[in-house]
Amino acid sequence: MKHIDREARLGSNTFVGENVVIEKNCVIGDNVRIGHNSVLHENTHLGENSFVGDHVVLGERLMAFYQNPKEYTNPRLDIGANSILRSGTVIYAGSKFGADFETGPHVIVREKSSFGKRNMLGPLCQSEGDNQIGDYNRFLNNVHLPRKTVIGNYVWVFPYTIFTNDLHPPCGRHIEGPTIEDYAVIGTYCMFLPGVKVGKNALVGAMSLVTKDVPAESVAIGIPARVVKNIRDVKCKRELVSAPYPWKDCISREKAKRYGYPWWKEKES
Amino acid sequence: MKHIDREARLGSNTFVGENVVIEKNCVIGDNVRIGHNSVLHENTHLGENSFVGDHVVLGERLMAFYQNPKEYTNPRLDIGANSILRSGTVIYAGSKFGADFETGPHVIVREKSSFGKRNMLGPLCQSEGDNQIGDYNRFLNNVHLPRKTVIGNYVWVFPYTIFTNDLHPPCGRHIEGPTIEDYAVIGTYCMFLPGVKVGKNALVGAMSLVTKDVPAESVAIGIPARVVKNIRDVKCKRELVSAPYPWKDCISREKAKRYGYPWWKEKES
Amino acid sequence: MKHIDREARLGSNTFVGENVVIEKNCVIGDNVRIGHNSVLHENTHLGENSFVGDHVVLGERLMAFYQNPKEYTNPRLDIGANSILRSGTVIYAGSKFGADFETGPHVIVREKSSFGKRNMLGPLCQSEGDNQIGDYNRFLNNVHLPRKTVIGNYVWVFPYTIFTNDLHPPCGRHIEGPTIEDYAVIGTYCMFLPGVKVGKNALVGAMSLVTKDVPAESVAIGIPARVVKNIRDVKCKRELVSAPYPWKDCISREKAKRYGYPWWKEKES
Repeated sequence: MKHIDREARLGSNTFVGENVVIEKNCVIGDNVRIGHNSVLHENTHLGENSFVGDHVVLGERLMAFYQNPKEYTNPRLDIGANSILRSGTVIYAGSKFGADFETGPHVIVREKSSFGKRNMLGPLCQSEGDNQIGDYNRFLNNVHLPRKTVIGNYVWVFPYTIFTNDLHPPCGRHIEGPTIEDYAVIGTYCMFLPGVKVGKNALVGAMSLVTKDVPAESVAIGIPARVVKNIRDVKCKRELVSAPYPWKDCISREKAKRYGYPWWKEKES
Repeated sequence: MKHIDREARLGSNTFVGENVVIEKNCVIGDNVRIGHNSVLHENTHLGENSFVGDHVVLGERLMAFYQNPKEYTNPRLDIGANSILRSGTVIYAGSKFGADFETGPHVIVREKSSFGKRNMLGPLCQSEGDNQIGDYNRFLNNVHLPRKTVIGNYVWVFPYTIFTNDLHPPCGRHIEGPTIEDYAVIGTYCMFLPGVKVGKNALVGAMSLVTKDVPAESVAIGIPARVVKNIRDVKCKRELVSAPYPWKDCISREKAKRYGYPWWKEKES
Repeated sequence: MKHIDREARLGSNTFVGENVVIEKNCVIGDNVRIGHNSVLHENTHLGENSFVGDHVVLGERLMAFYQNPKEYTNPRLDIGANSILRSGTVIYAGSKFGADFETGPHVIVREKSSFGKRNMLGPLCQSEGDNQIGDYNRFLNNVHLPRKTVIGNYVWVFPYTIFTNDLHPPCGRHIEGPTIEDYAVIGTYCMFLPGVKVGKNALVGAMSLVTKDVPAESVAIGIPARVVKNIRDVKCKRELVSAPYPWKDCISREKAKRYGYPWWKEKES
């Protein structure tokens, strides 16, 4: 049975699926579709034209709830317009996402984070909270962002890559997350030691252990990763494109449009 | 509350749990059991004697739905008889699975794929779509199959192994998935560069980075992986079996029977 | 709609969310809160003051159910008092957990395992069954514990670390899980070959391939991992603490209290 609290506010033309629970003080924009069996906890704000899949949890309660549920107030969760949250996504209360946010199934995002616009978290990604993420970033399957991650704009992180933040775990007295600058590309299955910075347009090859900073425009690879060349020296081994990097030049007009990059019209094909 | 669309067709002796949603044009075979809170979207076809766990989503909508929900038609999803889909599994519309398909919890399978019979995807596996998978394959926990993966029959892939398909990500102009031939065994925590082929009966050791083709009957291991011997030269370090590979000879009659291998009766013990 | 079997026994002051299913012979302690859309299968016992999130499955049925659902009896699942099971957690029937058990979202734990008190399994962790886990262990995101894992007390395992148990997969004739002794720390992204033992207070560095036993109090790192020093010789590279290890000496009083370590009052700060 559907349960919509009287103190929740739904926009016009909203579709609410079966067995959905919308708790009090939720605010849902116009033209939103919420799939079956999803739960929106207190103070979830969801922008217009958004889609929520089945079995999604928005506003998962924070630790203070378990310590004293009666006195607890769920912090506000803000999800921007035109978002797509696929089935099984769990987003904790107390974060903010810009417009056009997208998740794959079973994504988990914790509290006190700020995501800009047009970010995509693929299936099973985890963001552990306290993170600052810019615009237009794409994280593929199962990427792990620990607390105190700082990411710029137009960054790509490929599947199963994991960043760390504790200098000598489990001490935790000093936490240093990664910093990834604009247009950087991080390959599949990489592991980053705490506090590493990756410069603008840099490329980290697959299965690398990144132990120190990677300069802008450089290619680093290996265990441990070493800088091996400039990104402009990377060749396509099938000779299908003249220069794969910077990827902004290589990516197709069609893909740039699909991902909503504002510069897509500058591209020829 | 249960919601079963009038245009859905249920077989005889079907058990439908609490709060289940079955959308229109679903076709459910005889003797099927659907657990609680699961959702079957439009045009899901589920074969007889199958089991669906709790919080399962079958027929997750494709991207076209979010672009124009009113004009959207969900492609048909076909799941064969005698399947077991455990709790939290999410299968997108538009794929086809042979009989005796089995998933662990929280498995994710995308669209336009063809799986033969008797495939098993362990907990948290992801298949990204456009994949061609034969019969009798077993993928353990958290295996990642990217688009354009081709897998033969009787293949084993062990946990956290990941294949890739983009020659210079994120360009995506040319996609080459892996090709894995019959009876190959891929160890835990391996990473494959795009377009690699693994030959029949080959063995890839754990934590290998596979950068080029692995010939049939050979053992490859390392970062990068190199061929180190023939599979018939692998010894059991505890001297418990005379020859671990080819694994078809080593595996017990009881296990071969349990996995439904048609040749199980040929085995002695 | 809520469905609570007449043969289930609920304690006093229990909160049961919307669309929850509690099957027969479940026994729920006092002051328990069960979130929305969760399912408790037959013979689930849940201790007092516990919290269950949304879309949780407790008592997931074992393989015998699928072979003969009519004759099947779900084995008892015991979860201790003061536990917190976050949204999307799936725990199979037939295991036992001590008090103060905690899971992140989408955790999966299989049957025939014994967990002591105060264990934490982070998001997406998988425990495959037949495991013996002591007290006060903390497994971060996506850790994989195969069958026949033995873990002592106060062990830390960091994200995406995976243990194995099959000497020559998929043969499975001889299974040897890992043994991890008290206070050991296993870094992020490690892979363990079958049957490896890690001694008391030992430290395994990130992205290591552990192929043989790691002695107590030693630091092992690399692919393959080699012992490189004693844990007391590890320095903080930022010189923020004098000795990061043994971590029991380094961890703050506040953290030790939060994790419930009985010796937290001995610490100064």
